[in-house]
Amino acid sequence: MSAGRRRRAVVRDELVTLSHGAGGKATRDLVEALFAAELRNEALEPLGDSAVLARARGRLALTTDAYVVRPLSFPGGDIGELAVNGTVNDLAVAGARPLWLAAGFVLEEGFPIAELERLVRSMATAARVAGVVVAAGDTKVVEHGKADGMYVTTAGVGVLEHDLELVPEAVRPGDRVLLSGTLADHGVAVMVARGELALEGDLASDTAPLHELVASLLPLGPALRWMRDPTRGGLATALNELVGSCGLTVRIAEAALPVRPTVAAACEILGIDPLYVANEGKLVAVVAPEAEERALAALRAHAVGAGAVAIGTVEDGGDRPFVLLDTALGGERIVDLMVGDPLPRIC
Amino acid sequence: MSAGRRRRAVVRDELVTLSHGAGGKATRDLVEALFAAELRNEALEPLGDSAVLARARGRLALTTDAYVVRPLSFPGGDIGELAVNGTVNDLAVAGARPLWLAAGFVLEEGFPIAELERLVRSMATAARVAGVVVAAGDTKVVEHGKADGMYVTTAGVGVLEHDLELVPEAVRPGDRVLLSGTLADHGVAVMVARGELALEGDLASDTAPLHELVASLLPLGPALRWMRDPTRGGLATALNELVGSCGLTVRIAEAALPVRPTVAAACEILGIDPLYVANEGKLVAVVAPEAEERALAALRAHAVGAGAVAIGTVEDGGDRPFVLLDTALGGERIVDLMVGDPLPRIC
Repeated sequence: MSAGRRRRAVVRDELVTLSHGAGGKATRDLVEALFAAELRNEALEPLGDSAVLARARGRLALTTDAYVVRPLSFPGGDIGELAVNGTVNDLAVAGARPLWLAAGFVLEEGFPIAELERLVRSMATAARVAGVVVAAGDTKVVEHGKADGMYVTTAGVGVLEHDLELVPEAVRPGDRVLLSGTLADHGVAVMVARGELALEGDLASDTAPLHELVASLLPLGPALRWMRDPTRGGLATALNELVGSCGLTVRIAEAALPVRPTVAAACEILGIDPLYVANEGKLVAVVAPEAEERALAALRAHAVGAGAVAIGTVEDGGDRPFVLLDTALGGERIVDLMVGDPLPRIC
Repeated sequence: MSAGRRRRAVVRDELVTLSHGAGGKATRDLVEALFAAELRNEALEPLGDSAVLARARGRLALTTDAYVVRPLSFPGGDIGELAVNGTVNDLAVAGARPLWLAAGFVLEEGFPIAELERLVRSMATAARVAGVVVAAGDTKVVEHGKADGMYVTTAGVGVLEHDLELVPEAVRPGDRVLLSGTLADHGVAVMVARGELALEGDLASDTAPLHELVASLLPLGPALRWMRDPTRGGLATALNELVGSCGLTVRIAEAALPVRPTVAAACEILGIDPLYVANEGKLVAVVAPEAEERALAALRAHAVGAGAVAIGTVEDGGDRPFVLLDTALGGERIVDLMVGDPLPRIC
């Protein structure tokens, strides 16, 4: 920013007011003293209407997610970290290297500025860890009672630096299904943070960026078929979407599914199958059978993938492809798409 | 989408429920039967977590805006059209050709599905007109009373197909300030739609995409210095941001500012200066003096720029650069940044 009549911006208010979203002095102060100060990077610096970025060599990937998690902070993370990692992960599982994020905030009048600052700082830290910059942003304020503290929508742009087609149609019968770690940690941690469960133990969200896991799978080449981060709706939903698109059956083994004992106990109390609970730092990948061991070794080389396991196999399901679960008791059941919403506002 | 067990998706509900945001069956039906059906395009089709797009030849531009306008529909437009045009315009004024949008929805439980469909259709139409595709989307639902019908955050990606540096630092004393048409139409139309003014007449939002206006100014080359769409905070805010960044004074002539008589009357009743009221289809451009006539002719060749006029000049303001207004009565006053928010939730 050049000299001119610019003064050092300061946010003197303790609470968000409608003025902070009006585009005038208060907005400028909030943007300069809080958002730009926390998220500081070259692209955001000019504070224009668009960030002008570098050229990108390769196909682009674009994604967006709205975050409405309640409460805003929970064991293991908060909405700021979640909004960065979730978008980074959506880019990563498409095979893209995450580069730039944009963040749009809807704030409720009366929201504490200090809390906003803490959450934006959390975004900034998560962005640094994931190697992305928040290059564009916008803030709107709605009247008290017209939001729930803060909603944030992040969009992300990444670049595919390879020619692989990581699509459901690439999946073949005999392929192996891998999972990078334990199930259901995020959803259960949020439920506990709401005080809806009186449980103690190692309950924490698994929110984490998956870009390094993905980067170490890409060298598998065409033996890497498809990836997804099983967030809202859990592993069951991710696999059902795969089955719906590729027309093959996915058979997973209940005995192979890693679930922490405290998480399993919480799910039992809630009456929810951990297969349907959101994860925010887990990768499910389908690979050719000959690549299974190499893929597992690559995942386990990272802290976030240390618990990686094979959980199932792709089969020709004929006319009726399903997600099938071989139960621990020796039975078999269909894992269908979830009806209703047992865990609202989990992300 | 391949065969498999996919059935034709239908939304049977009349109102949005929490299930529509949960990631299960209801979400999939809403996405397929409503969002994908209305916004249909190749990138959105696979409904993965990220859209994989073409390569882009040139620097990229990235922008985002959150839309919380109340009411959702108003004379001349609605939140859907606004969310597309606003993001298209932020890309355009950065000198980028708008290519791809992402849209994140926060819906209030109980919102009518038919209204959602109408607003998404409006987005689709606006996207077609602006030559962009909505390539990625996300939907979350919050409990009744935790939002105001619908908020939407759009992000946009464009490409700069030239090497111009359209930045405040490119502006020089003697440069001319051009405006593509009348001021304050959008803000006043929204206020009237709220029933806060008992006025009749040709009051309608000016929401429109500006990409074609911009495309016809780019051939000016380095004589084109800087552009902005004066939305929230109006022309006064856009020019103050320019002055703050380039350290020069901008002097505009009140007599040259085009304001429709009904809009002027409404502003008088509201006690608001039209300089501070949001526009959603206007371009302000700074050009070298020798390019003024060519630029005005280029703008006037388009329907949305038919009313283009020169409104002022850039001056060396010394140590104290300002936005100055030569009043119709022969005086001079400083046009400062707005304090407070006379028109909340205008976009």
